[in-house]
Amino acid sequence: MSHITIDHIVQAAERITVHRTPVHTNTTLDNLASREDAPVQLFFKCELFQKTGSFKYRGASNAVELLTDEEASKGVVTHSSGNHAQAIALAAKNRGIKAYVVMPNTTPSVKKAAVIGYGATVIECEPLQAVREKTAFEVQEETGATFVHPFNNANVIAGQGTIALELLSQVQNLDAIIVPVGGGGMLTGCSIAAKSLNPAIKVYAAEPECVDDCYRSFKNNERLTNKSSLSVADGLLTNLGDIAFSEIHKNVDDVFTVSEKEIINTMELIWARMKLCIEASAAVGVAVALYNKDFQDAVKANKIKRIGVILCGGNVDIINATELFQKYKD
Amino acid sequence: MSHITIDHIVQAAERITVHRTPVHTNTTLDNLASREDAPVQLFFKCELFQKTGSFKYRGASNAVELLTDEEASKGVVTHSSGNHAQAIALAAKNRGIKAYVVMPNTTPSVKKAAVIGYGATVIECEPLQAVREKTAFEVQEETGATFVHPFNNANVIAGQGTIALELLSQVQNLDAIIVPVGGGGMLTGCSIAAKSLNPAIKVYAAEPECVDDCYRSFKNNERLTNKSSLSVADGLLTNLGDIAFSEIHKNVDDVFTVSEKEIINTMELIWARMKLCIEASAAVGVAVALYNKDFQDAVKANKIKRIGVILCGGNVDIINATELFQKYKD
Repeated sequence: MSHITIDHIVQAAERITVHRTPVHTNTTLDNLASREDAPVQLFFKCELFQKTGSFKYRGASNAVELLTDEEASKGVVTHSSGNHAQAIALAAKNRGIKAYVVMPNTTPSVKKAAVIGYGATVIECEPLQAVREKTAFEVQEETGATFVHPFNNANVIAGQGTIALELLSQVQNLDAIIVPVGGGGMLTGCSIAAKSLNPAIKVYAAEPECVDDCYRSFKNNERLTNKSSLSVADGLLTNLGDIAFSEIHKNVDDVFTVSEKEIINTMELIWARMKLCIEASAAVGVAVALYNKDFQDAVKANKIKRIGVILCGGNVDIINATELFQKYKD
Repeated sequence: MSHITIDHIVQAAERITVHRTPVHTNTTLDNLASREDAPVQLFFKCELFQKTGSFKYRGASNAVELLTDEEASKGVVTHSSGNHAQAIALAAKNRGIKAYVVMPNTTPSVKKAAVIGYGATVIECEPLQAVREKTAFEVQEETGATFVHPFNNANVIAGQGTIALELLSQVQNLDAIIVPVGGGGMLTGCSIAAKSLNPAIKVYAAEPECVDDCYRSFKNNERLTNKSSLSVADGLLTNLGDIAFSEIHKNVDDVFTVSEKEIINTMELIWARMKLCIEASAAVGVAVALYNKDFQDAVKANKIKRIGVILCGGNVDIINATELFQKYKD
């Protein structure tokens, strides 16, 4: 699959067995996101309630289900310290095949335990991107397992697109959606789904300003990389993938960034007001709606009223999170 | 209304405008609650997503809606530092009438702000039960407002019963429900609703062992009071009300208690695994399912498989809660 279409996404939705996650609304958040001359209503797609605690299960299970029996018999391999690791582990378990997950030896033991709990084999390595890739390649060579990239894989992207497919069927007449962006799997899948179903909808990417490669790549129409890999939004640290970069100008209308403080304050607001334990990456889209001036100009210019925002996951260390809430308190 | 029936509860459900809160499930929690010879499945009724962040809005709005126009024109009064205060404030706002809320002068400012935010008038007083009651009585005398008790009020109880009405329509074939108990409004309403719809269902009350007046009153068939008013489950500190005590033996099968550590560990588990920011009172029912040996004997003896548990609210100070998580860590 070189070109991803709405058909691939619709087929993925039929193929995978996922939770149809609920959409929540909240008057307090609407009021905070509204300006006097531009009232908006936010619709929060709760992927924190997805299997394994994040949207990643959609893409991982689509990729795993699409393996031939011959491929499947040899298992799957990936490298990830985060949500994709758990997603691949559960997707493999549910197909009854082996999963090998390469994780940096700095990964918190609770994350390793979750992956092992789903029956996957964890292979530890030095915490360097090159070593992770090399180790995964070696496992692939030894076992014949199929490598499933966390975002630069068309089947994974088609799976992530099912979020927008569902959201647009759950909420009528959305004027815009905001999608957090790291490697761009979710952004690419959702932007294709949303624009295919409604060409008039605006699709906006949301990114931490500390790791703003997507913002700069989009504005310069040139693939640029992150200078830092530090943000509280640990699901969004990576550079945009090849596929995402090649697709971004077709279906994404703009990219907006937010500061670490804006992300953390938004996260706390969603815990306290919406009672949802989201991870920091999931706060990034909402933070754009609450704080980004360029976004608010776009809302006014485009007469945007109804905005879908993806709360992409809830895998978070509660103690660390509240320490950040205290540190960044106004 | 002296005797509360299913008809009052059904009428309340038709009268009030509330969120039909979702029911969540979680495999990890099921596994923790199951014993080898007694597997169970838990169904979590998410009242933390109710308007004002707790189930209290159901009862408060039923009571407010049932006022005559003459009564309503003079407003409502209550005393509460907790969820009932916000519930009455919003219920009054939605009917377009005045609300007077007597709050102890030790109430955290964020709780006062929430009540004022709904347009209610806050009257502060010394933090003593007798002073609270006297102050509320004085307001009632001065204004002619109707006093709406947080739990010892038949219309409030009928409103709370709508939780069980909804839950039993959302989940088929429940064998038991577990309801946290403080003053007993939710317990009484839910037990009448559940037993009326399905006389075979078991109704269990869940209480912190530090404030176990309901447990002792039930076992001794005599109204006993709490010796302490200290528990992390701050919604359940009060003694059982008259109405609840007079009804408890008709529809409640047993009462089980849990320790502070069990409550706090359960609360953390629900935050981390289910991504739900519940308050401590909401963890009490789940803690019974996870830890109480007598409950587990009852499960086995009665062949209970499908258990509804009410997550009654989510109004919690996040920082305080996580400090408790750390303090009570295994």
